[in-house]
Amino acid sequence: MTDAGIGQADGLDDLETPCLLLDSDRLTANVAGMRARLDRLGVSLRPHLKTAKSLDVARIAMASPSGPATVSTLREAEYFAEGGVRDLIYAVGIAPQKLYRVGAIRRRWGADLAIVLDSVEQAEAVAAWGRGHGDPLPVLIEVDADGHRSGVDPRDADTLVAIGRTLAEGASLRGVLLHAGDSYVLTDPPALIAAAEAERQAALGAAAILRDAGLPCPVVSVGSTPTARYAEDLDGITEVRAGVFMIGDLFQAGVGSCGIDDIALSVLTTVIGHQRDKGWIITDAGWMALSRDRGTARQAIDQGYGIACDLAGRPYPDLIVRDANQEHGILALRPGSSAARPDLPIGSRLRILPNHACATGAQHDRYHVIADGRLTGAVWPRINGW
Amino acid sequence: MTDAGIGQADGLDDLETPCLLLDSDRLTANVAGMRARLDRLGVSLRPHLKTAKSLDVARIAMASPSGPATVSTLREAEYFAEGGVRDLIYAVGIAPQKLYRVGAIRRRWGADLAIVLDSVEQAEAVAAWGRGHGDPLPVLIEVDADGHRSGVDPRDADTLVAIGRTLAEGASLRGVLLHAGDSYVLTDPPALIAAAEAERQAALGAAAILRDAGLPCPVVSVGSTPTARYAEDLDGITEVRAGVFMIGDLFQAGVGSCGIDDIALSVLTTVIGHQRDKGWIITDAGWMALSRDRGTARQAIDQGYGIACDLAGRPYPDLIVRDANQEHGILALRPGSSAARPDLPIGSRLRILPNHACATGAQHDRYHVIADGRLTGAVWPRINGW
Repeated sequence: MTDAGIGQADGLDDLETPCLLLDSDRLTANVAGMRARLDRLGVSLRPHLKTAKSLDVARIAMASPSGPATVSTLREAEYFAEGGVRDLIYAVGIAPQKLYRVGAIRRRWGADLAIVLDSVEQAEAVAAWGRGHGDPLPVLIEVDADGHRSGVDPRDADTLVAIGRTLAEGASLRGVLLHAGDSYVLTDPPALIAAAEAERQAALGAAAILRDAGLPCPVVSVGSTPTARYAEDLDGITEVRAGVFMIGDLFQAGVGSCGIDDIALSVLTTVIGHQRDKGWIITDAGWMALSRDRGTARQAIDQGYGIACDLAGRPYPDLIVRDANQEHGILALRPGSSAARPDLPIGSRLRILPNHACATGAQHDRYHVIADGRLTGAVWPRINGW
Repeated sequence: MTDAGIGQADGLDDLETPCLLLDSDRLTANVAGMRARLDRLGVSLRPHLKTAKSLDVARIAMASPSGPATVSTLREAEYFAEGGVRDLIYAVGIAPQKLYRVGAIRRRWGADLAIVLDSVEQAEAVAAWGRGHGDPLPVLIEVDADGHRSGVDPRDADTLVAIGRTLAEGASLRGVLLHAGDSYVLTDPPALIAAAEAERQAALGAAAILRDAGLPCPVVSVGSTPTARYAEDLDGITEVRAGVFMIGDLFQAGVGSCGIDDIALSVLTTVIGHQRDKGWIITDAGWMALSRDRGTARQAIDQGYGIACDLAGRPYPDLIVRDANQEHGILALRPGSSAARPDLPIGSRLRILPNHACATGAQHDRYHVIADGRLTGAVWPRINGW
């Protein structure tokens, strides 16, 4: 650690810890990189706002202040609609009890909020609601790209067509939506390229089934950060939803979706103790500040609860958060490391790169913004909850 | 599932999901049980409020509206002081940068807020601050009960006495504080009884060292839910800090600190889909609502992300949250189970018992209160952050 490094982070000593830091230079570069990539491939970006949950971040990530964008909760839909976003997909399967709230968001803000479903049962409820309320909701049929979670089997023509025909009775079928969630366990580029192509083929197959049945399918929406990063051909796809790419994290670095130097999010923490005989440095960022996410535990490099960096964001060699209690982080060298443990007296500050930006972000209610290596003074609020 | 079960949970169909439910009958019984146990052992209870983070819960858990109580963040200290709590320990090692805020809480609310430290370095900063501000802060020296985290080795007389003498120059030494965190990995009663006795012996040893050196040690504070539940002798201990006991969770049930029927917290969720060929039921409570805590993964019974129950809180046989994405829970039977999967159509509601009450609670900002098996209509706010 050099003094120059500390000098680059003016103001970080004055914040209350633990807290979230967001490097807006990295954020902007990550967004520009993804946008350029998708421009080359001829598809539009509908950024998923579930990672950042911040209107300030959304305005950097979206093509325009009105969207398009993707959300994971109706609370996000309300928050972003209030902030001027008008083109939204709520990309979690709809429950009938939530339709009144979807309708209210559409009416109150004039938002084009679309919903997602994968069963005739849901389609019947949505169509009935649309007839009853005179609001034919735009709907995307969720299609299962890879057995990861939800969605209709893309070869199940009977179900796809039955859903489409049911929706014709009171909703507006807008297309198909897929999420290649299994790409998160892949790590080598050929496998990721293949996963992206499989997602595309599933999408095109489902869209063809609907169109062959005379049903509309203007939107063919795919998305996951790894497949968005590795897709070589997106012909036939109209939009890509991806979210974590804009911030990045150690899990995505482990997949190869970003470099560690691209990660825009870190948790500022203060040293509160030592157990020198054990080689432990104790900090005030425990799992409450970092989240319980241990996603890198199943990757080739286990990053513990995160990588410890100096105030300029440079990792200390082999120093990770080896364990965490609620409000205590236990920093130690990686097992077997021969690196020198840095001398960090009580009161020293450092930054932790997180395993999972979505999970770590959710433990906080604001971002302290860094640009040009300095705290700008801007504080960007973020939301949580449903 | 019987209709009687559903009838016992009036109102649960009207809440937005996912959300937190708190059974105030179980909460009250858990508190009464711990209080009776500690009364028999002749020590007072200083409940840790880091699990509930709610003034309404605190008022049930504390001996009086003014405390005593324990907190894990200065944000909690401020919130509870504002709510009338006057006797508080902030039980995480102090950083010098936080002393101004400790002083502010003491002045603004007249709160007796004590702090914790385990080094001469911290003691010097605290004493200097006390001299500079005319406020000799009450301090407990953290003693390491079992190598779990922070604290001075209880046999390290030199350090204990050096800290005590340093504090005499501008602070007020109040005693010693221990947390037998390693008790969380134990499961059989004899080992837990032994851990509690080891915690007591370490406490008494450290207190004796201070007293033999002519230093004050009026408070001898120990605490963890497992050792509080199993201690057979607390002679010489003045108070017990424990927190999760009042709510309970599947991890504590795995340790034997509570029964599954004692767990007061659950997450209400709605079925949003099925993958019937895989035996999956998809709900709207993913890890964002349940937390990423997988603490039971290392116990004899892995509960996944939680146990699925009907609206009356009765577990469905062998039905657990097998996997979770951000806003999706994937329910399935335990591996190898021959139980019948319940028929839960889209829109059905169920309750998930969490692995870890502290972590799951932190994902939410309020509790919906259940008493006598019915939603009372009361909503108890809870805080997060630092």
